Amino acid sequence: MDNKEKIELFEKTFPFWDKMSEDDKATFIRSSSNVYFKKGTNIHNGDNCTGVILVKTGALRLYLLSDEGKEITLYRLFPGDMCIMSASCVLSTITFDVFVDSEENSECFVVGGCAYEDLANRMPEAKIFALETAVSRFSDVMWVMQQILFMSTDKRLAIFLLDETAKTGSDTVKLTHEQIAKYMGSAREVVSRMLKYFASEGILTSSRSEGIKILDKKKLRQLAL
Amino acid sequence: MDNKEKIELFEKTFPFWDKMSEDDKATFIRSSSNVYFKKGTNIHNGDNCTGVILVKTGALRLYLLSDEGKEITLYRLFPGDMCIMSASCVLSTITFDVFVDSEENSECFVVGGCAYEDLANRMPEAKIFALETAVSRFSDVMWVMQQILFMSTDKRLAIFLLDETAKTGSDTVKLTHEQIAKYMGSAREVVSRMLKYFASEGILTSSRSEGIKILDKKKLRQLAL
Repeated sequence: MDNKEKIELFEKTFPFWDKMSEDDKATFIRSSSNVYFKKGTNIHNGDNCTGVILVKTGALRLYLLSDEGKEITLYRLFPGDMCIMSASCVLSTITFDVFVDSEENSECFVVGGCAYEDLANRMPEAKIFALETAVSRFSDVMWVMQQILFMSTDKRLAIFLLDETAKTGSDTVKLTHEQIAKYMGSAREVVSRMLKYFASEGILTSSRSEGIKILDKKKLRQLAL
Repeated sequence: MDNKEKIELFEKTFPFWDKMSEDDKATFIRSSSNVYFKKGTNIHNGDNCTGVILVKTGALRLYLLSDEGKEITLYRLFPGDMCIMSASCVLSTITFDVFVDSEENSECFVVGGCAYEDLANRMPEAKIFALETAVSRFSDVMWVMQQILFMSTDKRLAIFLLDETAKTGSDTVKLTHEQIAKYMGSAREVVSRMLKYFASEGILTSSRSEGIKILDKKKLRQLAL
Protein backbone atom coordinates (compact mmCIF):
# COMPACT_ATOMS: atom_id res chain seq x y z
CA MET A 1 0.00 0.00 0.00
CA ASP A 2 1.60 3.26 -1.02
CA ASN A 3 1.22 6.51 0.89
CA LYS A 4 -1.51 7.79 -1.39
CA GLU A 5 -3.68 4.79 -0.56
CA LYS A 6 -2.94 5.22 3.14
CA ILE A 7 -3.93 8.85 3.06
CA GLU A 8 -7.17 8.05 1.28
CA LEU A 9 -8.09 5.52 3.94
CA PHE A 10 -7.19 7.91 6.76
CA GLU A 11 -9.25 10.69 5.20
CA LYS A 12 -12.24 8.36 5.01
CA THR A 13 -11.87 6.99 8.54
CA PHE A 14 -10.73 9.87 10.72
CA PRO A 15 -13.04 12.90 10.74
CA PHE A 16 -10.15 14.98 12.15
CA TRP A 17 -7.63 14.13 9.41
CA ASP A 18 -7.88 17.50 7.66
CA LYS A 19 -7.21 19.34 10.91
CA MET A 20 -4.01 17.42 11.66
CA SER A 21 -0.66 19.16 11.20
CA GLU A 22 1.60 17.94 8.38
CA ASP A 23 4.00 16.56 11.00
CA ASP A 24 1.26 14.55 12.68
CA LYS A 25 0.05 13.23 9.35
CA ALA A 26 3.58 12.10 8.50
CA THR A 27 3.87 10.33 11.88
CA PHE A 28 0.55 8.53 11.30
CA ILE A 29 1.66 7.36 7.87
CA ARG A 30 5.05 6.24 9.18
CA SER A 31 3.71 4.34 12.19
CA SER A 32 1.01 2.45 10.34
CA SER A 33 1.22 -0.72 8.32
CA ASN A 34 -0.80 -2.97 6.09
CA VAL A 35 -1.40 -6.40 7.63
CA TYR A 36 -3.04 -9.53 6.20
CA PHE A 37 -4.72 -11.91 8.60
CA LYS A 38 -5.60 -15.42 7.53
CA LYS A 39 -9.11 -16.60 8.47
CA GLY A 40 -9.10 -17.76 12.08
CA THR A 41 -6.04 -15.81 13.24
CA ASN A 42 -6.07 -14.39 16.75
CA ILE A 43 -5.16 -10.73 16.24
CA HIS A 44 -5.50 -9.38 19.77
CA ASN A 45 -5.73 -11.15 23.11
CA GLY A 46 -6.30 -8.34 25.58
CA ASP A 47 -2.81 -8.17 27.00
CA ASN A 48 -1.03 -5.74 24.77
CA CYS A 49 -1.75 -2.58 22.80
CA THR A 50 -2.04 -3.98 19.29
CA GLY A 51 -3.03 -0.60 17.86
CA VAL A 52 -6.00 0.89 16.09
CA ILE A 53 -7.16 -1.57 13.42
CA LEU A 54 -8.96 -0.36 10.30
CA VAL A 55 -10.71 -3.13 8.36
CA LYS A 56 -10.19 -2.93 4.58
CA THR A 57 -11.57 -6.32 3.53
CA GLY A 58 -12.85 -9.37 5.39
CA ALA A 59 -14.33 -9.43 8.89
CA LEU A 60 -13.11 -9.34 12.48
CA ARG A 61 -14.90 -10.82 15.47
CA LEU A 62 -14.56 -9.39 18.99
CA TYR A 63 -15.36 -11.71 21.87
CA LEU A 64 -14.92 -12.44 25.55
CA LEU A 65 -13.17 -15.63 26.58
CA SER A 66 -13.70 -17.36 29.92
CA ASP A 67 -11.03 -19.28 31.82
CA GLU A 68 -12.79 -22.45 30.73
CA GLY A 69 -12.60 -21.47 27.05
CA LYS A 70 -16.21 -20.38 26.64
CA GLU A 71 -16.63 -17.54 24.17
CA ILE A 72 -19.20 -14.78 23.83
CA THR A 73 -19.24 -12.85 20.59
CA LEU A 74 -19.69 -9.13 21.28
CA TYR A 75 -19.77 -7.81 17.74
CA ARG A 76 -18.10 -8.04 14.35
CA LEU A 77 -16.30 -5.42 12.29
CA PHE A 78 -16.57 -5.11 8.53
CA PRO A 79 -14.79 -3.07 5.83
CA GLY A 80 -14.78 0.61 6.82
CA ASP A 81 -15.03 -0.15 10.56
CA MET A 82 -12.40 0.79 13.10
CA CYS A 83 -11.36 -1.37 16.06
CA ILE A 84 -10.41 0.75 19.05
CA MET A 85 -10.66 -2.02 21.71
CA SER A 86 -7.34 -3.38 20.47
CA ALA A 87 -5.66 -0.08 21.40
CA SER A 88 -5.79 -0.32 25.18
CA CYS A 89 -3.15 2.38 25.52
CA VAL A 90 -5.48 4.88 23.82
CA LEU A 91 -8.43 4.06 26.12
CA SER A 92 -6.99 3.63 29.59
CA THR A 93 -10.47 3.36 31.12
CA ILE A 94 -11.07 0.11 29.23
CA THR A 95 -9.97 -2.47 31.77
CA PHE A 96 -11.48 -5.67 30.43
CA ASP A 97 -9.77 -8.10 28.09
CA VAL A 98 -11.30 -8.46 24.70
CA PHE A 99 -10.18 -10.93 22.03
CA VAL A 100 -10.11 -10.18 18.32
CA ASP A 101 -9.99 -12.85 15.61
CA SER A 102 -10.12 -12.56 11.85
CA GLU A 103 -13.28 -14.38 10.87
CA GLU A 104 -12.31 -14.35 7.21
CA ASN A 105 -9.13 -13.62 5.32
CA SER A 106 -8.86 -9.95 6.18
CA GLU A 107 -6.78 -7.08 4.95
CA CYS A 108 -6.30 -4.56 7.72
CA PHE A 109 -4.46 -1.42 8.35
CA VAL A 110 -2.95 -1.01 11.82
CA VAL A 111 -2.09 2.40 13.25
CA GLY A 112 0.40 2.16 16.12
CA GLY A 113 -1.25 2.67 19.50
CA CYS A 114 1.47 5.07 20.64
CA ALA A 115 1.05 7.30 17.60
CA TYR A 116 -2.68 7.51 18.17
CA GLU A 117 -2.30 8.02 21.91
CA ASP A 118 0.20 10.81 21.39
CA LEU A 119 -2.14 12.57 18.99
CA ALA A 120 -5.19 12.04 21.22
CA ASN A 121 -3.37 13.70 24.12
CA ARG A 122 -2.80 16.81 22.06
CA MET A 123 -5.85 16.85 19.79
CA PRO A 124 -9.27 16.62 21.50
CA GLU A 125 -10.97 15.63 18.22
CA ALA A 126 -8.87 12.47 18.03
CA LYS A 127 -9.61 11.60 21.65
CA ILE A 128 -13.32 12.26 21.22
CA PHE A 129 -13.41 10.10 18.08
CA ALA A 130 -11.78 7.16 19.88
CA LEU A 131 -14.10 7.51 22.89
CA GLU A 132 -17.23 7.90 20.77
CA THR A 133 -16.31 4.78 18.81
CA ALA A 134 -15.94 2.88 22.08
CA VAL A 135 -19.22 4.19 23.50
CA SER A 136 -21.13 3.21 20.37
CA ARG A 137 -19.69 -0.32 20.74
CA PHE A 138 -20.87 -0.21 24.34
CA SER A 139 -24.39 -0.02 22.92
CA ASP A 140 -23.72 -3.04 20.68
CA VAL A 141 -22.48 -5.01 23.64
CA MET A 142 -25.48 -4.11 25.76
CA TRP A 143 -27.68 -5.37 22.98
CA VAL A 144 -25.84 -8.70 22.99
CA MET A 145 -26.10 -8.85 26.76
CA GLN A 146 -29.84 -8.28 26.71
CA GLN A 147 -30.20 -10.81 23.91
CA ILE A 148 -28.28 -13.47 25.80
CA LEU A 149 -29.68 -12.88 29.24
CA PHE A 150 -33.27 -11.97 28.56
CA MET A 151 -34.23 -13.79 25.39
CA SER A 152 -35.16 -17.36 24.93
CA THR A 153 -32.99 -19.47 22.65
CA ASP A 154 -35.56 -19.98 19.91
CA LYS A 155 -35.96 -16.26 19.51
CA ARG A 156 -32.20 -15.73 19.58
CA LEU A 157 -31.53 -18.45 17.04
CA ALA A 158 -34.22 -17.12 14.72
CA ILE A 159 -32.74 -13.62 14.90
CA PHE A 160 -29.25 -14.99 14.31
CA LEU A 161 -30.30 -16.94 11.21
CA LEU A 162 -32.22 -13.96 9.81
CA ASP A 163 -29.22 -11.70 10.39
CA GLU A 164 -26.93 -14.17 8.63
CA THR A 165 -29.17 -14.54 5.59
CA ALA A 166 -29.62 -10.76 5.40
CA LYS A 167 -25.86 -10.27 5.55
CA THR A 168 -24.91 -12.89 2.99
CA GLY A 169 -27.95 -12.43 0.76
CA SER A 170 -28.37 -16.21 0.65
CA ASP A 171 -30.98 -18.49 2.21
CA THR A 172 -28.28 -20.95 3.20
CA VAL A 173 -26.21 -20.49 6.35
CA LYS A 174 -22.88 -22.29 5.99
CA LEU A 175 -21.92 -22.51 9.64
CA THR A 176 -21.63 -25.53 11.92
CA HIS A 177 -23.83 -25.83 14.99
CA GLU A 178 -20.67 -25.37 17.04
CA GLN A 179 -19.91 -22.07 15.30
CA ILE A 180 -23.48 -20.82 15.71
CA ALA A 181 -23.40 -21.71 19.40
CA LYS A 182 -20.16 -19.78 19.80
CA TYR A 183 -21.56 -16.69 18.12
CA MET A 184 -24.69 -16.87 20.24
CA GLY A 185 -22.87 -17.52 23.49
CA SER A 186 -24.85 -20.73 23.82
CA ALA A 187 -24.01 -24.45 23.88
CA ARG A 188 -23.80 -26.63 20.76
CA GLU A 189 -26.33 -29.08 22.21
CA VAL A 190 -28.86 -26.28 22.73
CA VAL A 191 -28.41 -24.98 19.19
CA SER A 192 -28.62 -28.47 17.66
CA ARG A 193 -31.79 -29.22 19.56
CA MET A 194 -33.39 -25.95 18.54
CA LEU A 195 -32.39 -26.46 14.87
CA LYS A 196 -33.95 -29.91 14.98
CA TYR A 197 -37.10 -28.33 16.36
CA PHE A 198 -37.09 -25.69 13.62
CA ALA A 199 -36.63 -28.46 11.02
CA SER A 200 -39.56 -30.40 12.47
CA GLU A 201 -41.65 -27.25 12.06
CA GLY A 202 -40.69 -27.05 8.40
CA ILE A 203 -38.77 -23.83 8.92
CA LEU A 204 -35.43 -25.14 7.65
CA THR A 205 -33.34 -28.16 6.77
CA SER A 206 -29.96 -28.75 8.37
CA SER A 207 -27.29 -31.11 7.10
CA ARG A 208 -23.56 -31.40 7.53
CA SER A 209 -22.86 -31.21 3.80
CA GLU A 210 -25.28 -28.46 2.80
CA GLY A 211 -25.47 -26.32 5.93
CA ILE A 212 -28.72 -24.75 7.09
CA LYS A 213 -31.24 -23.95 4.39
CA ILE A 214 -34.10 -21.63 5.34
CA LEU A 215 -37.41 -22.86 3.88
CA ASP A 216 -39.98 -20.70 5.67
CA LYS A 217 -38.66 -17.22 6.35
CA LYS A 218 -42.08 -15.91 7.39
CA LYS A 219 -42.29 -18.43 10.23
CA LEU A 220 -38.73 -17.63 11.24
CA ARG A 221 -39.56 -13.92 11.38
CA GLN A 222 -42.54 -14.61 13.62
CA LEU A 223 -40.23 -16.39 16.06
CA ALA A 224 -37.89 -13.42 16.00
CA LEU A 225 -40.59 -10.93 17.01
CA MET B 1 -28.43 24.16 48.54
CA ASP B 2 -27.07 27.63 47.95
CA ASN B 3 -24.81 28.60 45.08
CA LYS B 4 -21.63 28.28 47.15
CA GLU B 5 -22.43 24.64 47.89
CA LYS B 6 -23.25 24.03 44.23
CA ILE B 7 -19.97 25.53 43.08
CA GLU B 8 -18.02 23.42 45.56
CA LEU B 9 -19.63 20.25 44.25
CA PHE B 10 -19.04 21.25 40.63
CA GLU B 11 -15.39 22.01 41.35
CA LYS B 12 -14.96 18.59 42.91
CA THR B 13 -16.79 16.71 40.15
CA PHE B 14 -15.90 18.42 36.88
CA PRO B 15 -12.16 18.56 36.10
CA PHE B 16 -12.90 21.30 33.56
CA TRP B 17 -14.79 23.63 35.93
CA ASP B 18 -11.94 26.12 36.29
CA LYS B 19 -11.64 26.47 32.52
CA MET B 20 -15.31 27.32 32.04
CA SER B 21 -16.30 30.88 31.22
CA GLU B 22 -18.22 32.84 33.86
CA ASP B 23 -21.29 32.74 31.60
CA ASP B 24 -21.13 28.95 31.30
CA LYS B 25 -20.68 28.56 35.03
CA ALA B 26 -23.74 30.73 35.64
CA THR B 27 -25.75 28.59 33.19
CA PHE B 28 -24.69 25.39 34.97
CA ILE B 29 -25.69 26.80 38.34
CA ARG B 30 -29.02 28.03 36.99
CA SER B 31 -29.93 24.79 35.22
CA SER B 32 -29.12 22.46 38.08
CA SER B 33 -31.17 21.48 41.08
CA ASN B 34 -31.02 19.56 44.29
CA VAL B 35 -33.29 16.52 44.30
CA TYR B 36 -34.15 14.03 47.07
CA PHE B 37 -35.10 10.52 46.05
CA LYS B 38 -36.81 8.20 48.50
CA LYS B 39 -35.41 4.67 48.68
CA GLY B 40 -36.84 2.62 45.82
CA THR B 41 -37.77 5.51 43.53
CA ASN B 42 -37.33 5.02 39.81
CA ILE B 43 -35.26 8.02 38.72
CA HIS B 44 -34.66 7.26 35.07
CA ASN B 45 -36.32 4.78 32.72
CA GLY B 46 -34.36 5.12 29.51
CA ASP B 47 -36.88 7.17 27.58
CA ASN B 48 -35.97 10.72 28.38
CA CYS B 49 -32.91 12.82 29.11
CA THR B 50 -33.11 13.11 32.88
CA GLY B 51 -29.80 14.94 33.07
CA VAL B 52 -26.40 14.38 34.62
CA ILE B 53 -26.92 13.11 38.17
CA LEU B 54 -24.30 13.73 40.85
CA VAL B 55 -24.74 11.56 43.95
CA LYS B 56 -24.31 13.48 47.23
CA THR B 57 -25.59 10.89 49.70
CA GLY B 58 -27.19 7.45 49.38
CA ALA B 59 -26.82 5.05 46.47
CA LEU B 60 -28.21 4.62 42.97
CA ARG B 61 -28.55 1.34 41.10
CA LEU B 62 -28.35 1.09 37.30
CA TYR B 63 -29.95 -1.93 35.69
CA LEU B 64 -31.37 -3.43 32.54
CA LEU B 65 -35.02 -4.47 32.52
CA SER B 66 -36.47 -7.11 30.22
CA ASP B 67 -39.98 -7.07 28.76
CA GLU B 68 -40.83 -9.80 31.24
CA GLY B 69 -39.64 -7.72 34.19
CA LYS B 70 -36.32 -9.47 34.75
CA GLU B 71 -33.60 -7.15 36.03
CA ILE B 72 -29.85 -7.21 35.70
CA THR B 73 -27.88 -4.88 37.92
CA LEU B 74 -25.06 -3.25 35.98
CA TYR B 75 -23.45 -1.21 38.73
CA ARG B 76 -24.19 1.13 41.61
CA LEU B 77 -23.21 4.74 42.19
CA PHE B 78 -22.17 6.15 45.53
CA PRO B 79 -21.47 9.65 46.91
CA GLY B 80 -19.04 11.46 44.63
CA ASP B 81 -20.06 9.44 41.56
CA MET B 82 -21.61 10.90 38.45
CA CYS B 83 -24.35 9.24 36.40
CA ILE B 84 -24.00 10.05 32.72
CA MET B 85 -26.23 7.23 31.38
CA SER B 86 -29.26 9.24 32.47
CA ALA B 87 -28.23 12.05 30.10
CA SER B 88 -28.93 10.39 26.77
CA CYS B 89 -28.88 13.73 24.97
CA VAL B 90 -25.23 14.21 25.97
CA LEU B 91 -24.19 10.77 24.70
CA SER B 92 -26.04 10.23 21.46
CA THR B 93 -24.12 7.00 20.75
CA ILE B 94 -25.70 5.36 23.81
CA THR B 95 -28.71 3.65 22.28
CA PHE B 96 -29.73 1.19 24.98
CA ASP B 97 -32.23 1.85 27.73
CA VAL B 98 -30.89 1.81 31.22
CA PHE B 99 -32.96 2.15 34.37
CA VAL B 100 -31.84 4.05 37.46
CA ASP B 101 -33.37 3.56 40.92
CA SER B 102 -32.43 5.07 44.26
CA GLU B 103 -31.40 2.11 46.37
CA GLU B 104 -31.41 4.20 49.53
CA ASN B 105 -32.75 7.61 50.44
CA SER B 106 -30.46 9.66 48.21
CA GLU B 107 -29.64 13.30 47.89
CA CYS B 108 -28.65 14.10 44.34
CA PHE B 109 -27.79 17.05 42.26
CA VAL B 110 -29.12 17.04 38.71
CA VAL B 111 -27.55 19.14 35.97
CA GLY B 112 -29.89 19.68 33.03
CA GLY B 113 -28.98 17.53 30.04
CA CYS B 114 -29.34 20.46 27.63
CA ALA B 115 -26.94 22.63 29.61
CA TYR B 116 -24.33 19.89 29.65
CA GLU B 117 -24.87 19.06 26.00
CA ASP B 118 -24.52 22.69 24.98
CA LEU B 119 -21.26 22.98 26.90
CA ALA B 120 -19.92 19.66 25.56
CA ASN B 121 -20.50 20.84 22.01
CA ARG B 122 -18.32 23.86 22.61
CA MET B 123 -15.81 22.58 25.16
CA PRO B 124 -13.93 19.38 24.27
CA GLU B 125 -12.91 18.79 27.91
CA ALA B 126 -16.58 18.50 28.93
CA LYS B 127 -17.30 16.10 26.09
CA ILE B 128 -14.22 13.99 26.87
CA PHE B 129 -15.16 13.84 30.56
CA ALA B 130 -18.66 12.57 29.75
CA LEU B 131 -17.34 9.99 27.28
CA GLU B 132 -14.57 8.78 29.58
CA THR B 133 -17.06 8.35 32.41
CA ALA B 134 -19.23 6.25 30.09
CA VAL B 135 -16.30 4.15 28.86
CA SER B 136 -15.14 3.39 32.39
CA ARG B 137 -18.69 2.18 33.16
CA PHE B 138 -18.42 0.03 30.04
CA SER B 139 -15.65 -1.84 31.84
CA ASP B 140 -17.85 -2.30 34.91
CA VAL B 141 -20.62 -3.70 32.76
CA MET B 142 -18.27 -6.11 30.98
CA TRP B 143 -17.19 -7.37 34.37
CA VAL B 144 -20.82 -8.04 35.31
CA MET B 145 -21.40 -9.72 31.97
CA GLN B 146 -18.44 -12.04 32.42
CA GLN B 147 -19.50 -12.76 35.98
CA ILE B 148 -23.04 -13.66 34.96
CA LEU B 149 -22.25 -15.60 31.81
CA PHE B 150 -19.04 -17.37 32.71
CA MET B 151 -19.14 -17.96 36.42
CA SER B 152 -21.03 -20.59 38.30
CA THR B 153 -23.61 -19.47 40.83
CA ASP B 154 -21.74 -20.65 43.94
CA LYS B 155 -18.74 -18.57 42.98
CA ARG B 156 -20.92 -15.59 42.13
CA LEU B 157 -22.88 -15.78 45.35
CA ALA B 158 -19.69 -16.10 47.39
CA ILE B 159 -18.22 -13.02 45.70
CA PHE B 160 -21.44 -11.10 46.21
CA LEU B 161 -21.58 -11.89 49.93
CA LEU B 162 -17.91 -11.01 50.41
CA ASP B 163 -18.42 -7.71 48.56
CA GLU B 164 -21.42 -6.88 50.72
CA THR B 165 -19.63 -7.60 54.00
CA ALA B 166 -16.60 -5.63 52.83
CA LYS B 167 -18.80 -2.69 51.93
CA THR B 168 -20.86 -2.62 55.11
CA GLY B 169 -18.09 -3.74 57.46
CA SER B 170 -20.46 -6.23 59.03
CA ASP B 171 -20.61 -10.03 58.84
CA THR B 172 -24.36 -9.88 58.45
CA VAL B 173 -26.00 -9.27 55.08
CA LYS B 174 -29.46 -7.80 55.57
CA LEU B 175 -30.92 -8.55 52.16
CA THR B 176 -33.68 -10.94 51.17
CA HIS B 177 -32.99 -13.84 48.80
CA GLU B 178 -35.13 -12.01 46.27
CA GLN B 179 -32.97 -8.90 46.50
CA ILE B 180 -29.74 -10.88 46.22
CA ALA B 181 -31.10 -12.69 43.17
CA LYS B 182 -31.97 -9.36 41.56
CA TYR B 183 -28.52 -7.96 42.16
CA MET B 184 -26.92 -11.11 40.77
CA GLY B 185 -29.21 -11.34 37.76
CA SER B 186 -30.24 -14.77 39.00
CA ALA B 187 -33.47 -16.37 40.19
CA ARG B 188 -34.61 -16.37 43.82
CA GLU B 189 -34.92 -20.15 43.80
CA VAL B 190 -31.31 -20.53 42.69
CA VAL B 191 -30.04 -18.15 45.36
CA SER B 192 -32.14 -19.80 48.10
CA ARG B 193 -30.87 -23.24 47.15
CA MET B 194 -27.29 -22.10 47.10
CA LEU B 195 -27.64 -20.34 50.47
CA LYS B 196 -29.10 -23.54 51.91
CA TYR B 197 -26.09 -25.40 50.55
CA PHE B 198 -23.72 -22.83 52.06
CA ALA B 199 -25.54 -23.20 55.41
CA SER B 200 -25.22 -26.97 55.25
CA GLU B 201 -21.47 -26.49 54.76
CA GLY B 202 -21.33 -24.35 57.91
CA ILE B 203 -20.40 -21.25 55.93
CA LEU B 204 -23.36 -19.14 57.06
CA THR B 205 -26.78 -19.08 58.66
CA SER B 206 -29.75 -17.57 56.90
CA SER B 207 -33.02 -16.58 58.52
CA ARG B 208 -35.81 -14.22 57.65
CA SER B 209 -35.48 -12.24 60.88
CA GLU B 210 -31.70 -12.00 61.16
CA GLY B 211 -30.61 -12.02 57.54
CA ILE B 212 -27.49 -13.85 56.38
CA LYS B 213 -24.72 -14.22 58.94
CA ILE B 214 -21.31 -15.28 57.65
CA LEU B 215 -19.70 -17.86 59.96
CA ASP B 216 -16.75 -19.11 57.92
CA LYS B 217 -15.27 -16.35 55.80
CA LYS B 218 -12.23 -18.42 54.87
CA LYS B 219 -14.38 -21.09 53.24
CA LEU B 220 -16.40 -18.42 51.47
CA ARG B 221 -13.21 -16.87 50.10
CA GLN B 222 -12.09 -20.22 48.75
CA LEU B 223 -15.36 -20.51 46.83
CA ALA B 224 -14.81 -17.03 45.43
CA LEU B 225 -11.38 -17.86 43.98
